[in-house]
Amino acid sequence: MKAMVRHSNDRAPSDVGVTTLAAGYYTDPAYFAREQEHIFRKHWLFAGRHDDVPPGSYVTRRLGDAQLLLVRDEAGVLRAFHNVCRHRGTLLCSAEHGPARGHLQCAYHAWTYRLDGALHRAPHMEKVSGFRTEDWPLLPVALQVWAGNVFLYLGEGTPPPLSEYLDTVDTRFAAWAMAELRTVARRTYQLRANWKLVISNYHECLHCPVAHPQLCKLSPYLSGDNEPMHPTWMGASMELLPGCATLSLSEPTAGAPRRAPLPGLDEQARRSVFYYALLPSMLLNPHPDYVVTFQLRPLAADRTEIECHWLMHPDEIARPGFDPSDAVEFWDLTNRQDWELSDLAQAGISSRGYRPGPYSNREELLAAFDRWVIERAGAL
Amino acid sequence: MKAMVRHSNDRAPSDVGVTTLAAGYYTDPAYFAREQEHIFRKHWLFAGRHDDVPPGSYVTRRLGDAQLLLVRDEAGVLRAFHNVCRHRGTLLCSAEHGPARGHLQCAYHAWTYRLDGALHRAPHMEKVSGFRTEDWPLLPVALQVWAGNVFLYLGEGTPPPLSEYLDTVDTRFAAWAMAELRTVARRTYQLRANWKLVISNYHECLHCPVAHPQLCKLSPYLSGDNEPMHPTWMGASMELLPGCATLSLSEPTAGAPRRAPLPGLDEQARRSVFYYALLPSMLLNPHPDYVVTFQLRPLAADRTEIECHWLMHPDEIARPGFDPSDAVEFWDLTNRQDWELSDLAQAGISSRGYRPGPYSNREELLAAFDRWVIERAGAL
Amino acid sequence: MKAMVRHSNDRAPSDVGVTTLAAGYYTDPAYFAREQEHIFRKHWLFAGRHDDVPPGSYVTRRLGDAQLLLVRDEAGVLRAFHNVCRHRGTLLCSAEHGPARGHLQCAYHAWTYRLDGALHRAPHMEKVSGFRTEDWPLLPVALQVWAGNVFLYLGEGTPPPLSEYLDTVDTRFAAWAMAELRTVARRTYQLRANWKLVISNYHECLHCPVAHPQLCKLSPYLSGDNEPMHPTWMGASMELLPGCATLSLSEPTAGAPRRAPLPGLDEQARRSVFYYALLPSMLLNPHPDYVVTFQLRPLAADRTEIECHWLMHPDEIARPGFDPSDAVEFWDLTNRQDWELSDLAQAGISSRGYRPGPYSNREELLAAFDRWVIERAGAL
Repeated sequence: MKAMVRHSNDRAPSDVGVTTLAAGYYTDPAYFAREQEHIFRKHWLFAGRHDDVPPGSYVTRRLGDAQLLLVRDEAGVLRAFHNVCRHRGTLLCSAEHGPARGHLQCAYHAWTYRLDGALHRAPHMEKVSGFRTEDWPLLPVALQVWAGNVFLYLGEGTPPPLSEYLDTVDTRFAAWAMAELRTVARRTYQLRANWKLVISNYHECLHCPVAHPQLCKLSPYLSGDNEPMHPTWMGASMELLPGCATLSLSEPTAGAPRRAPLPGLDEQARRSVFYYALLPSMLLNPHPDYVVTFQLRPLAADRTEIECHWLMHPDEIARPGFDPSDAVEFWDLTNRQDWELSDLAQAGISSRGYRPGPYSNREELLAAFDRWVIERAGAL
Repeated sequence: MKAMVRHSNDRAPSDVGVTTLAAGYYTDPAYFAREQEHIFRKHWLFAGRHDDVPPGSYVTRRLGDAQLLLVRDEAGVLRAFHNVCRHRGTLLCSAEHGPARGHLQCAYHAWTYRLDGALHRAPHMEKVSGFRTEDWPLLPVALQVWAGNVFLYLGEGTPPPLSEYLDTVDTRFAAWAMAELRTVARRTYQLRANWKLVISNYHECLHCPVAHPQLCKLSPYLSGDNEPMHPTWMGASMELLPGCATLSLSEPTAGAPRRAPLPGLDEQARRSVFYYALLPSMLLNPHPDYVVTFQLRPLAADRTEIECHWLMHPDEIARPGFDPSDAVEFWDLTNRQDWELSDLAQAGISSRGYRPGPYSNREELLAAFDRWVIERAGAL
Repeated sequence: MKAMVRHSNDRAPSDVGVTTLAAGYYTDPAYFAREQEHIFRKHWLFAGRHDDVPPGSYVTRRLGDAQLLLVRDEAGVLRAFHNVCRHRGTLLCSAEHGPARGHLQCAYHAWTYRLDGALHRAPHMEKVSGFRTEDWPLLPVALQVWAGNVFLYLGEGTPPPLSEYLDTVDTRFAAWAMAELRTVARRTYQLRANWKLVISNYHECLHCPVAHPQLCKLSPYLSGDNEPMHPTWMGASMELLPGCATLSLSEPTAGAPRRAPLPGLDEQARRSVFYYALLPSMLLNPHPDYVVTFQLRPLAADRTEIECHWLMHPDEIARPGFDPSDAVEFWDLTNRQDWELSDLAQAGISSRGYRPGPYSNREELLAAFDRWVIERAGAL
């Protein structure tokens, strides 16, 4: 089956099966806007981990054209709002994170909101005929948490149930008990590449022998299996080589066990690394002894920001001399290798000489993902 | 009365009276272009103080898409021109300021202009059939000076008389004798905010208790009165607290007199600070012992440059140990506080979560200004 | 004859003959795109010198929206390709230059190409039904070399013969034997000016007395002659003053001979400097003892990159103590003078106060060039 749409420059010389998408899907600002409307505002979006927002604090986030505020009250309830004062539109919280004890106050005219979003006090508005504080709460944003992973829904109307969105991914990874894990590292990356190139890069390992020698020493690049494409997720697994306990840069032996496997993992899970995507914004990457999550934040057709969290078990974190750097540095290195390639792909695809090229059989998930995008945001 | 136009996202929950404008008025480049055409090219624009350009010198200015040249000849006559050589369009003067003695010469082909703009010499053009130097003067720009304040008119056709534009503002502030005052400090600020947010910020003091504690110690934020909206200006005054002589950061006592009041001010003027705007580009801020002027230079829908002048009386300047820093630093601090808030307002208004919000009764001038803009540049 | 099209602001006050073009020709991104299509993709483009790419190496070049690869195999054959892997569109070579020994390999999935562009190896593609390596070569770009000057053709279809494009320019400069010359210096310049302003600057010397005092000491600015405009080139010459051997900054005497004249030049060529343009992208500037070439790379309506090569004879290069700096620094200085003026012209032309101005008789080539552009890319 061929991808449905071709670039005007397309001159595929023979019938080779599925080809990559035309350039415009990766470069056209108008198509990027269509993706925002039909994909990013029609799906739950990953927005980080629950422990990003301790009780009595807030964090601010920009997702697409939305400025968001995640607030956890001292009782532990987490809520999300548009980070915009209802009076004159001022950004309510301007720091990346800060305390939230009882109220949040706008720095402009001291409008004060409770942590449930209700307008508490609006100085001098009492004389305005018809003004009622209950009419001007912070605009809420739908928020759900699965296993410590925070999801927001930015579309209009009632969001679909999160469980329907998760569509068995939650049960598949139940044994990792991610709700109990804690963030041990967080890094943010700036790419000059379209967000779809990041997902395409993540869902094939044919590039691993060239790009990731450190990974290929620990996990055979042709091992594992792809799941068939699902309406909200894609997934694959790879095996660890015998004698290798995890993906890490631990010295003197890469892949040596530095942490116990997560409790509750069966033997197969202890020998595997999983590469899942909850579309369009979360990459979920569980290992025997840790989990990495990737939050994709598309900024423009050719710009993407990615934030990674590394999650580990509290028992390990509590051990004297705990050091997660073997896992953190392994993926930081791998990320940089991948995203340099993504940037080079964006540069080539953006040039006059790009033509759609042939996918191999081992890139079947990429072709399926391309179709997934076109079914939602339309053909160019 | 409601503002005439609402953002498509607008869902004002109740009839609260006037609300802020829809986001596009602050973010849409096309609306910014309409404002340039229907507001900035239909009004006199403040372009700085007469002593910015000493005799025998020039300054260059960019206003909107115009590159301008203000030249004062050695006899003291001040003129304005487009800073563009009539030969090949080269920028005639490339420095911010410089000497102008007799002539200005283009660095490209040595076309030379007299300081009245006439083309004096155009090497090698004498052989061009039909060429006459009198046909190629620098393009003049209408210039008028009121009380040392320089105004330019960039529109087509004959500008309206400046006195009509000033519309009694000149007589209201005649006692300050601004023509005699001299510039003691000049600072330029870069904002990531629409120019209208600067004017809105200037015309209400409800934000003062939160944003300007140093001001509220000297001048009660609910004191004073607003003038009704006029076709070319807005105005308000505030009172100084008893024992306070001016707005200043003088040590050990803020607001202590360091300079005599300007000669000719009556008792009420000695107890007041005035907040006037000559629309769309001048904020005029007279104090008992000094005057601050603000020149607004909109660069884009979300960018504004502001240049402030601090003016004082020559008798004070001549005193041994003269030090204007108490007044300069007071307003520099206040400016930075205000313009950080303006930037935050622009960020919030630009985000998906913005909805028009309710003005209080004390923000009546802002609602009137919003209507003033829409009456001229049209509704979105 | 007047230029066919005028800016809407145009108010030429009298019939002075030919005037400069309206602002939009220099500022409008849509017109820039039309020039790319109708001029830059319809002519051979200068792409540097043959010795930029030694045997067994590649260089990468960006021309317009094309990413290009010039590769010379170890047998000496030079070829050009789009620098884009046929698999997933990745930029094949990401460095500015590098070795090319036998093959070039994509860093993403190890697709490997021979230096003639043929796809040599595509791992894992063998299982794709219908896939044949011969269907997926690097996309070739037409390349021709005249006298060591490399030309590419980026348009669709068969390019016109290079000899037709050169149109006697090759025979005019046959005596310089440029194929034998070698590059002794290479410098790149970034301009904030439209590419046409560079060509206009190059084709008149009325600005020389003001802008280039060091040049006027060696070559009378009114000397020499213009050739009539040709379909693909423009040309002029200037004479050297008696006692002056070349254009140089040699100490203690500028213009003193430091190198023998190029072999084969007649007496007139030894007394002249030539200023030719092979439109739209090559300026060719032969001197008695060296040649300078300029490659124009338009980046946007208001941005141009220029790369200069200085070429000298191998016998001179081989001499002990060889030092080309007298020629390199002469033109580096002259370039900076010219391109600051070009930037000022762009700034003035981009402003509201620009009006087309009158060309002198000595700017006849500029008017002819303006017409050349409009005949190809159309009138605004």
